[in-house]
Order: sequence, then structure tokens, then C-alpha cells
Amino acid sequence: MNSENELPRPEVPRAVISRLSLYLRELQQLSRIGKETINSNQLGKRLGITDAQVRKDLAYFGQFGYPGKGYVCTELIAKIRHILGTDRIWPVVLVGCGNLGQALLGYQGFERVGFQVVAAFDNHPGIIGQEFSGLKVKAFSDLVSFISSESIRMAILAVPPGSAKFVVDQLVQGGISGILNFAPVTLSVPKRVSVIDVDLAMELEQLAFAVFKQSTEK
Amino acid sequence: MNSENELPRPEVPRAVISRLSLYLRELQQLSRIGKETINSNQLGKRLGITDAQVRKDLAYFGQFGYPGKGYVCTELIAKIRHILGTDRIWPVVLVGCGNLGQALLGYQGFERVGFQVVAAFDNHPGIIGQEFSGLKVKAFSDLVSFISSESIRMAILAVPPGSAKFVVDQLVQGGISGILNFAPVTLSVPKRVSVIDVDLAMELEQLAFAVFKQSTEK
Repeated sequence: MNSENELPRPEVPRAVISRLSLYLRELQQLSRIGKETINSNQLGKRLGITDAQVRKDLAYFGQFGYPGKGYVCTELIAKIRHILGTDRIWPVVLVGCGNLGQALLGYQGFERVGFQVVAAFDNHPGIIGQEFSGLKVKAFSDLVSFISSESIRMAILAVPPGSAKFVVDQLVQGGISGILNFAPVTLSVPKRVSVIDVDLAMELEQLAFAVFKQSTEK
Repeated sequence: MNSENELPRPEVPRAVISRLSLYLRELQQLSRIGKETINSNQLGKRLGITDAQVRKDLAYFGQFGYPGKGYVCTELIAKIRHILGTDRIWPVVLVGCGNLGQALLGYQGFERVGFQVVAAFDNHPGIIGQEFSGLKVKAFSDLVSFISSESIRMAILAVPPGSAKFVVDQLVQGGISGILNFAPVTLSVPKRVSVIDVDLAMELEQLAFAVFKQSTEK
């Protein structure tokens, strides 16, 4: 007999993966305050999502709940982390140690989800050698050799827009497969490299539209 | 005869609004380097989007191009800013002046798109009164009166998760309609308030999934 594991797995929509992160964050919070189990209805309600959506999303990856009991928080946390690939420590490099880069170095949220910034790079002589959040900034000229020798797969890009293309080419050359991009430009990368863009100004623009639209509809 | 302006406007999908921001950013870049016109094909190519998609997105809001010439960059920039409501200066308050809050105060990207952080708040005695990027941090107890007297509509929330609920209730009480939320929690707000969540750790988690999935597919 075929086991369920051998069936071909359908392509999972990106929105589902995004909600997995949301479920995980909520479950971790619940677990911290001592909650042991939760059902799809309760979990959905806390996130403004229907229980059917919660069950459908999780069903992509298997059967996780218990009849009449719901999900065991710590168990579902472990399973989602395994699905996302964050049940290990991912070493990450950060490139660009200006204002935003320095804040990201001090941001404690990354470690919470299994990411460790292991090195920071800049090309500015006044910044190289300075220490931020316990990391001494390395010269940009050491970037490629560092990521290849340490087999780093992910990078956080916090450089000015004008430097982005040059830096990204170096990251790709060094073997990076994933870039969290804070530079306000559209990066051009080979297909094997994933990019997630975080443009804070664009986010605020989206918010302005929502607020503005509401005020003109009144 | 009815003019086109009087037809009921269809509800615009959120993804379209999101791409408007992207078009705007790209057009501003093109305009800075002296490009005067661009067609939907060229614009789409720069963003990895089809020309049909570009035209369809813009068609929600009217007819902007010229046959055989394309779009005039400065003209389309002005029109998109008008649609988004960012053709004016939006005063914004920032609440929470820890690491991330301080970086956001120094972040120059917001002004680029018409947002001006006019006041920053914290409840920590060691932080109140300190100056970051030219703004002296105000006491949290002055928040509600400030936002109502200055008619502030938007807030950036950079407080720890445990304080988020309390702060948000105050923001809502003061009359805020839009919140850019960096606290890693799902906020509960009245329907008239829009929230955009930016959870940097969740973004990195999404990236990890893409990288991880690729490595297991090899």
C-alpha cells in the first residue's frame, strides 16, 4: 500500500506559507502563556481567519489535530518550524551597516525564529571595524570569500539603492540563495535565488491609500 | 452624456495598489536618471511583470498613456501619487523608540514618499527627552492629546509585543486611522482603522522556506 507520504505533494500557494508564519507566531505566544491546546476555530479567531481556512492550510502538510481536542501547541509549533525549515539555526550575513543595517543588527526578532546574523559588511572606511550588537563590521571586499567558505545561504541587504546591483552580483557569485532586500529597488537575480522585498516606504504608502480612501468615502 | 468619471469605480484589488507603489518607485528612479517616457512593455520588464498587467492595473484609474509614445514619467508619477493619496505631506507619529524605533526615525525613505514623522513617543524614563534624528522623544502620556490636537491620522508602532495592545487602544482613542505595525502581534482594531503588518522575522521565515524548499528539491 502507498503511504500518504508518497503521494505527490501539490504546489503550496505562497499565501498559505505566509499564514503558516502567522500561525507559528500565534502558537508561540499561546505556548509562552501556558496554553497547551487550541482548536482551529480559536486559532482562526485570534487572527481574523475562518476555522475552515486554518484547517485547509494545514491540510497541505498532513493531519495535525486530535478529534475533540484540537492542536497541541508545542507539537504544531515543531511541525510548522519543520515545514518552514526553521527548526535549525540559519546563519545570515548582513550587508550595509548604515542606520537601518545597524538597527537590524540590534533587532532581536530574528533569533526568535532561528536566524543568526554571523557577519556584517560595509564598504565605508569609517564603519569597517566598528562594533554593532557584538559584531565587528567586515570590509565588503571579504564578502564573497566569507559566504563561500562559511556556506552562507541567506543575506540581508540594507545598502543604498545605488549600490544594490553591485552587492547583489557579489552575493550571487558567493553562492547566496536567498536575499531579504531592504534596498528600494527591484533586484535582478538568477532564478535559483529567492528575494523577499521589504520597502518600508512602500508599506506606508499602502497604508496611506487605505486611510485616504476611507476618508474620501465618508 | 455621462462622463467616464461618473461611472461607479470597481473595487480595486489590493495587489493592484501594491503594484502601483512599485510602478511609482520605478518611475521615480527613471525620472531621476533623466528618462522622459516609458511604455508598458519596458516598465513591466524592469519589474518582471507583463505589459498587459501594467496596462490592466492602470486602467482601473483611467487612461494615462499616449499612443506610440507610452507614459510620460513625471505625469504618471503625479497621477499615481494622487491615486495613492501621497501627493501631500502626511504627518505621522512613531511610538516606541527602542532599537528599531530609533532606526525608523533615521530612515530617510519615508520622506521620499511624503511621510513626515512629526513626533516620537516612549514610556521609558531613560528615553523620554532624548533626541533621535532631530526629534525629542515625548512621554507616552502625552500621546492621545497630541494626536487629537494635531489631527494625526497615521502611526508607526515599534513597541515590544507586550505593550502593543495598550498602545493601540490609545492610538484608536486619539483618532488614528492607520497603523504601520512592527510589533510581532496581530492587532485587534475597529473596522475603520487600517493596519499594515511588517514582521521582519516572518519575512525572513518566508525566505527560509523558499531557500529550504529549493535545497530539498535538488
